[in-house]
Order: sequence, then C-alpha cells, then structure tokens
Amino acid sequence: MKLAEIYGHFQSDIKIIEKELEETIQARHEVLRQASTDLLHAGGKRIRPVFVLLAARFGTYDIQALKHIAVSLELIHMASLVHDDVIDDADLRRGKKTIKSQWDNRVAMYAGDYIFAKAVQTAAYFDSRSIHLIISDAIMEMCIGEVEQIRDQFNWDQNLRTYFRRIKRKTALLIAVSCKLGAIAANAPIDVQRRLYLFGYYVGMSFQITDDILDFVGTMEQLGKPAGGDLRQGNVTLPALYAMYKEPKLKTIIQSSLTKDEPFEDMTDIINQIKASGGIEYAVTISDRYLQKAFDQLEALPDVEAKTYFLQLASYIGRRKF
Amino acid sequence: MKLAEIYGHFQSDIKIIEKELEETIQARHEVLRQASTDLLHAGGKRIRPVFVLLAARFGTYDIQALKHIAVSLELIHMASLVHDDVIDDADLRRGKKTIKSQWDNRVAMYAGDYIFAKAVQTAAYFDSRSIHLIISDAIMEMCIGEVEQIRDQFNWDQNLRTYFRRIKRKTALLIAVSCKLGAIAANAPIDVQRRLYLFGYYVGMSFQITDDILDFVGTMEQLGKPAGGDLRQGNVTLPALYAMYKEPKLKTIIQSSLTKDEPFEDMTDIINQIKASGGIEYAVTISDRYLQKAFDQLEALPDVEAKTYFLQLASYIGRRKF
Repeated sequence: MKLAEIYGHFQSDIKIIEKELEETIQARHEVLRQASTDLLHAGGKRIRPVFVLLAARFGTYDIQALKHIAVSLELIHMASLVHDDVIDDADLRRGKKTIKSQWDNRVAMYAGDYIFAKAVQTAAYFDSRSIHLIISDAIMEMCIGEVEQIRDQFNWDQNLRTYFRRIKRKTALLIAVSCKLGAIAANAPIDVQRRLYLFGYYVGMSFQITDDILDFVGTMEQLGKPAGGDLRQGNVTLPALYAMYKEPKLKTIIQSSLTKDEPFEDMTDIINQIKASGGIEYAVTISDRYLQKAFDQLEALPDVEAKTYFLQLASYIGRRKF
Repeated sequence: MKLAEIYGHFQSDIKIIEKELEETIQARHEVLRQASTDLLHAGGKRIRPVFVLLAARFGTYDIQALKHIAVSLELIHMASLVHDDVIDDADLRRGKKTIKSQWDNRVAMYAGDYIFAKAVQTAAYFDSRSIHLIISDAIMEMCIGEVEQIRDQFNWDQNLRTYFRRIKRKTALLIAVSCKLGAIAANAPIDVQRRLYLFGYYVGMSFQITDDILDFVGTMEQLGKPAGGDLRQGNVTLPALYAMYKEPKLKTIIQSSLTKDEPFEDMTDIINQIKASGGIEYAVTISDRYLQKAFDQLEALPDVEAKTYFLQLASYIGRRKF
C-alpha cells in the first residue's frame, strides 16, 4: 500500500495541518522565513502530525485544537533536521539544498533555534503544564541522542545497546510523544495514552532501523545522495554493527579505511561486504520484531477506525522501500 | 557602587537562585552536564534573575515560585551564549574556555538546544500560557537579532536604526522580559508590568551600548580577549558607526583592512582613530540617554524598597567600567 492511499482517508485534516504549518512558519524575518519555507516545501511524510491525529481518534477529536500539537511536533522535527544538517555536513536532504548550504551554518543554527521556539509557542495554545513538560523533555532527549551520536562517531567498538538507545532518543521518542500528546489533547483514557505511546515508540524504532537499512540498499536516485553515507560519516548503524561482529576482517577494513580526516569516497566494496555478511537481513528481522510489538499494542487498543490506518501506516513505515 | 554591594541586599535569594540553577543543570548526560556546569561556574552577573526578583517586589513576592522564572531566563541567556560561541569563533568568553573550544562546535550546538529546552521546561512550573508565549517570543526575537547580525557583518554602510534594532533584539528584550515576567509571576498590576518592561528595555539598551564601548576601551586583562574584537569580526557597533560617519577616511581604512577572509590582527590604530573621532563619547551620551529613560520609568513606579536597588543596578550597568 502506498502512503498516499493511506493518507487519502484523512486528507482534509492533513490539508488543515499543512495550511497551519505554512501560516505558522511565516516568520517576521525574511531570511528565517525563506529558510523555513524552503524546508517546509521540501516535503516530508508528516509522520508526526499524522500520528497525532490518529492517536486523537481514540478520544474526543477536535482538529482545531489538535492542529497545534501536530504543527508543534512537525516543527520540532524540522528544527532537528536543520540542526542535523549543520552537523552532518550534509549538502543534500531530500534531494534539495539544505538551509546550511544555501545560507550558511550560522544562519542554519539560528533558524533551527527559531523553529524550536516556534514549536514551543504553538504548543502554548494548550494551557497545560504536562504538554509543555513532555515537549521540552522530548527535545532534551533528542539533544542527548545527538551528542551521543557525535561521541560515538567512528567508534567501531560500540554495542547494540548503544545503537538502540541512540535511535530511541533520536527518532522513536518523538513519534511516541506524538501519539501520547494526540491522546492527551483528545482526553483519551490514561491506559490508552500509554498504549499509544508504546505503539509510537515501537513504530519509531522500526522506522529508524528501516532508514538505516535504506542508507545501504538505496540507489543514488532514491536517497538523493550516495549509499553508505551514514557509515562514511562514522555513524555506525545496525547492518554495519552486525557485519563487523560477524566478520572481524571487515571490521579491520572499515576501521582502517574510514577515518574522520582522510577522504574516502567509494563505499561500494564495504557496502557489498556488509550485504554479504547478512547484516541487512539481520536488521530487517529486528525491525520486523519492533513492528510486531507495535501491532501487539495496537491489537489491545479500543476498536476505532483509526486502528486500521495505524496498522497500514506502521506496515508502510516499517517495511517501506522508500 | 560595586555590584557585590548592591547584591548584598538580597543575597539570600540570589543564593537560592544559584542553587536552583546548579540543580537544574544536572543533565542526565555527562557531556551536556559538564558543558553546562562549566558555563555556570564561569559566572556572570546574573542580571536577568536579579531583575526578575526585583520586579516581583512590586507584587506578591514568593521566591519559591519566582525562582523558576529567574532560572529559566538565566538558562535562555546561557544557551544564547553557547550558540554565540559556535558562531563567533570566540575562543574565550569570560576568560575561560568556551564549550565550543573544549568540545566542539557540534556538541556546543546541541548543548545550547538542550539548555533552551531546559529553560522552557523550568518555566512550565507555571501553568500559564502567557508566560510561555512571552518566553518563546523572546527566544525568537533573539534568533532574528542574531541572523540580522550575521547578515550585517562587514556591512559598513548600515545605519543607526539597524544597530539599535539589533541590540534591542539581542539584549534589551530579554532584560525587559525578565522584568515583565517577574511582575507577572508576582501578580503586579498591568500598568506596573508595562512600566517594568520599559524600564528593563531601556536598561538593556544602555547595557549593550556600554558593552560595545568596553570592547574598544577595555584592556586585554579586563576583556579576557584583545580590544576591538567586535569590529574585527565585522560587527559594527555604535562607536564605530559614529566614527565612520564622522571620518569618511577612517571608513575607507576599515573597509579595506577588515574583510571576512583575510587575517588582520593589530586593531590598535583603528581603535585609536575611533577614540579620536569622539565615537566613545557619543556612545556614552546615547547610553546615558537610555539610562535616563529607565530612571524616568522607575520614578513613576510605586515606592517599594526594590526601587532603590533597581536604581543602583541601572546606574552600575549603564556606567560600569567592568
């Protein structure tokens, strides 16, 4: 099933979110406005807003209130992308020029700060301490995840636990929080909030693992950048972790070829060896395991229509090719 | 009058703030904790917290509630310093190594993000939409100010208005907001809130102009870095603006000596010519004018003891040598 088909069922509400995003991002300052608008139009799956909306279907659904949560979470995601780009020396994201390459690193940093603050402001629609605490906590966890990623770059001896903890902070938590806040804003029962949070968390883990797989198996055209970019930048993800564990010789090759300072462009051979080690299959298995856990949570939730969409979305996200 | 003497009158409450800052900054992650703690211990005048506390004396003073606002504002200030350092290539701030030089730029960016989020979280003690809106708005204005500063770097044709708007956003607004939030948290009357806001704004303008003057007249020992650093980095401040307007020849010299890419280390001659142009005296006059406006606002405020302290503080800030 394609994403567009799934989204088709709640197209009108997604349009409301897009419009609200567009209006929210009309920064008072031209440079910031331009930067944010470009990012907005670069697209994206709007996973977090959609999860907010669907989670809210388990309570009292009011799109005019919910949209503030949905927009706030997408803004946090956008801000983190902007700051990621400052960091990753990524010149292409989603095939478009990033804010960083278009303006410069320093503007990108403040644009990210601005978008973070805007996210907080948008969430202030709700006069609720707990919403603010959850949002600020999610941002802090993301920062910790990023700092851990920096610390662990080019560290070829890290273990699985380090990897899982990092992707939890970097990706899964914000999706879990999207579900939880949607449920809170819709006044869903506490146990439903908790289950939705777990559902989002498991989907988020599967999502990131799939992303990490795609970085190895995608084509230049699909990725908008050469494959193996994560590893090239010293970011050790699940397929590589498995491959290095399985093939100590490969670990030695990676260790000596990929360093912080020396250029190394052709990842083809390393990618092929990771594929040959079974690293991709292993990562797919783990991703599927998280997906199954997500389905289990979904199963136990009340029977509302949104369940079907969540099921379709989770399957899409965890097993997508692109 | 020395700062320590003025602070002596409310020493116990400042200690509460320091303790709260210390506890708040205990990040869950070692790198971020270390980074924040170093910054905290590097000191600073804690102007924003003190303004929160004094403003609250015009209403119902409750230090246990107020400390959250005070800490939140100091954290925003700290976060902005951290991000400033990423940008300014400043290797020294307050004579200590900055987070950036100690770790690296990327960690500094996330440390700043983390501290921003912590500031928002701290303010969530108050279940108040308006407090969140004011805080997020202040952060956004600061971002705009920073982006404008970047845009205007090495632009020798900017006018006074550009300068004043920039320092308003970069410095004065957060001090104004400190006063306003202190007053709001203490339930002071609306007109008192407004007056305190204006008072903070005028003091903030005077504060920044004084800072900009000190960058020219300070010694290496006082500044912890060589004089003329602002101008060297292309940041055009009031004394330089005046001097270039008064002495077109000097403008030509500055224009040709100071460029983004070429090294130029000895600022002595340029600094002396700016001094000779009367630029320092002019900036002092403008700073004093703002200070007088601040005093006028103070005059019209109800007679509480805090007025005396505010008066002393404003005089100190606007006329300080260091």
